[in-house]
Amino acid sequence: MRVGELSKRSGVAIATIKFYVREGLLPPGLRTKANQVDYSEAHLRRLRLVRALLDVGELSVATAKRIIAALDDPDESPLTSIGRAAYALARGFPAAVPPGADDNARVGALDLDTASVTRVNDLLDRYGWTVRPDNPARAQLASAIAAVQALDMGDALDLLDRYAQAAHSVAEVDVELALSPATLEESTERMLVWTVVGDRALSALRRLAQEAVIIKRM
Amino acid sequence: MRVGELSKRSGVAIATIKFYVREGLLPPGLRTKANQVDYSEAHLRRLRLVRALLDVGELSVATAKRIIAALDDPDESPLTSIGRAAYALARGFPAAVPPGADDNARVGALDLDTASVTRVNDLLDRYGWTVRPDNPARAQLASAIAAVQALDMGDALDLLDRYAQAAHSVAEVDVELALSPATLEESTERMLVWTVVGDRALSALRRLAQEAVIIKRM
Repeated sequence: MRVGELSKRSGVAIATIKFYVREGLLPPGLRTKANQVDYSEAHLRRLRLVRALLDVGELSVATAKRIIAALDDPDESPLTSIGRAAYALARGFPAAVPPGADDNARVGALDLDTASVTRVNDLLDRYGWTVRPDNPARAQLASAIAAVQALDMGDALDLLDRYAQAAHSVAEVDVELALSPATLEESTERMLVWTVVGDRALSALRRLAQEAVIIKRM
Repeated sequence: MRVGELSKRSGVAIATIKFYVREGLLPPGLRTKANQVDYSEAHLRRLRLVRALLDVGELSVATAKRIIAALDDPDESPLTSIGRAAYALARGFPAAVPPGADDNARVGALDLDTASVTRVNDLLDRYGWTVRPDNPARAQLASAIAAVQALDMGDALDLLDRYAQAAHSVAEVDVELALSPATLEESTERMLVWTVVGDRALSALRRLAQEAVIIKRM
């Protein structure tokens, strides 16, 4: 199809499609004549994936590029392939450095104290979760724990177990869903999209449920 | 205390503290002499809150400002006060428009079709959750649903109920935790921090559990 049709079917403006191609988020179309470029169904699908990552997942273009790259170079084993994509995702959380902040402040704030890291390890042991040492979600969890402790909300951490149980029940569903397609490529794509979109869905559901719980209590 | 001590105790560089004051994230210290400004324990606490919002919550400075403003102007009822802060949070998700994208593309992508909105309403009805019509989490959930449907992953939506159950179990803990302090101001601050930090913790736990589930299956 021509770029106009791709734009119409995806709801993405032509200028934006060209921007994605320039940025490497979308492979270029096939040039069939001097001034005609053809796009396939695969382009449409990829375009929808890019929009899900950018709009729903609210990832940066740079992170989306890393994820797309991991997708386009699938590994031989599901764990490695899915894991690599998931790790690219975790590393890609937008930098939180405000303009004017210096590097030291950032490093200081993200320095993970031993207590928080131990807390993460204890939790993994308690639930018997085997997780590779380089999984970036370890540091993500430790930084959340450190922040809660810095704010004298240490009692909040006792509730972490309820969080862990909820997360596990959700993760079982995630993996089941991801492993259902026939090909590894599709599995990885599903795991990725569902991880990104699922975070948004879970966060929205949590806010809705919070309000419902508060209203019920009044 | 002087700015140097505030910097030391918080682990935040002096230049960054001054940036926060300039941006209205931190109230200015009290000028006691011509060249001496004093900061209190309240400043230290606020500084830790700002870091939690920016570093752990990875919010933009603009969003953090809106949240701080909601905190500094508490309402009379817990629901209104906590709700206002939570809504400021939801509205503040960073814009997902890549440079080069035009407004039309954004509007098109975020346009919520009736089917997704109906799905959200059905879910709220099914669980008996009372949620105000202007709660921005409704649109957040609908956009996640629309994205999944656009990617032909409609079967993923059957799993939304497991997500809703997990979110509700977490929300009960959240509200319990938030309502435990004596003052409304503290309750609102707790709800806010824990909502932001809890999202990060939940997302990290989900990734850890996903890997554990995959490893177990292999």
